[in-house]
Amino acid sequence: MPKKIDHEQRRKQIAEATWRMILERGMEGATVRNIAQEAGLSLGALRHYFSTQDELLGYAMTLVKEKATARIQEVAMKDLPPKEKAVQLMLEIIPTDEETLAEMEVWFAFTAYARHKGEEFNAQHDGIHSYIYKLIDWLDESKLLKTHLDKETEAEKLYAIVDGLALHAMLDPERLVKDKVSRVLVHHVDSLCIDQQ
Amino acid sequence: MPKKIDHEQRRKQIAEATWRMILERGMEGATVRNIAQEAGLSLGALRHYFSTQDELLGYAMTLVKEKATARIQEVAMKDLPPKEKAVQLMLEIIPTDEETLAEMEVWFAFTAYARHKGEEFNAQHDGIHSYIYKLIDWLDESKLLKTHLDKETEAEKLYAIVDGLALHAMLDPERLVKDKVSRVLVHHVDSLCIDQQ
Repeated sequence: MPKKIDHEQRRKQIAEATWRMILERGMEGATVRNIAQEAGLSLGALRHYFSTQDELLGYAMTLVKEKATARIQEVAMKDLPPKEKAVQLMLEIIPTDEETLAEMEVWFAFTAYARHKGEEFNAQHDGIHSYIYKLIDWLDESKLLKTHLDKETEAEKLYAIVDGLALHAMLDPERLVKDKVSRVLVHHVDSLCIDQQ
Repeated sequence: MPKKIDHEQRRKQIAEATWRMILERGMEGATVRNIAQEAGLSLGALRHYFSTQDELLGYAMTLVKEKATARIQEVAMKDLPPKEKAVQLMLEIIPTDEETLAEMEVWFAFTAYARHKGEEFNAQHDGIHSYIYKLIDWLDESKLLKTHLDKETEAEKLYAIVDGLALHAMLDPERLVKDKVSRVLVHHVDSLCIDQQ
């Protein structure tokens, strides 16, 4: 099996070179030629792993999503009070450190690029929409959610808050620091939940 | 003065050709050559109005902002109950028809592009941040805002809701139709305001 592992490791290494190119030069700099050079490979060697630029870009985006999902699952396993856990889970999506800022930059650049590429990419379905709906359901099952809430409207609003904060934290990281993001999330989750004494 | 007017009209015509190119082909298609062709001008004639691609793109973005500002001012002059006016004002930013969807697409593509262009562009300062702060202040002055609200946190949250909805309405316009956007905004403005009998 070592050959198979090598193959996947090499693909990841190429994906990481792709992220660096997007971060440094934007999508217009993420050419197969530049990525091969950044990864220390010949064009021919790179083509052995990815036959087209779009296949490579699609894989690089899938890895961004997997990284975020892995962090979210780690938080989900933690033994935390539900409201705190809800805030921590959302903080894994909103960029507030170097790693998550880079992921958001790559997502943003890739999404703008993919808008004009037709059906090959389906960048908008990043899974956050259904994830936020589940979060609202989970607060409800934990008997924390206020009764009589319109869950669908609340989920849509929370989804907008999370992605709006993510966008602003990327565009203006000096203004929207982690503490400020955290304060908005805690404040909002509190407003959805019953008072606990 | 006719010469001056012709000059500005021609610049606007070129800016509109720029938007069409961005919408159809993304930023990578918005080359000076493609834009000149779309505007029915020679490259030399276009260069008479804009000496660089970045000058042209910057002007095209300024016009997008001016169009949105003009619509907002029109709503601001209307004789409407304050809460309804607040919702209508935010609906001018969130894309829910062909015109505003096109503006958002252009903003998104341009912002992604400008992230890697350094200081020449300052795409993040679209004025919506201070505009939302003013909206909260205005609800307060109209004696509608609940007392004891943390106005700064509420403004940050509302700003995230508006831009989050704008992003989602662009990425998934079939799901997030105008009625749904409206419902979230009305619901949120209601939650900020005192009950009126």
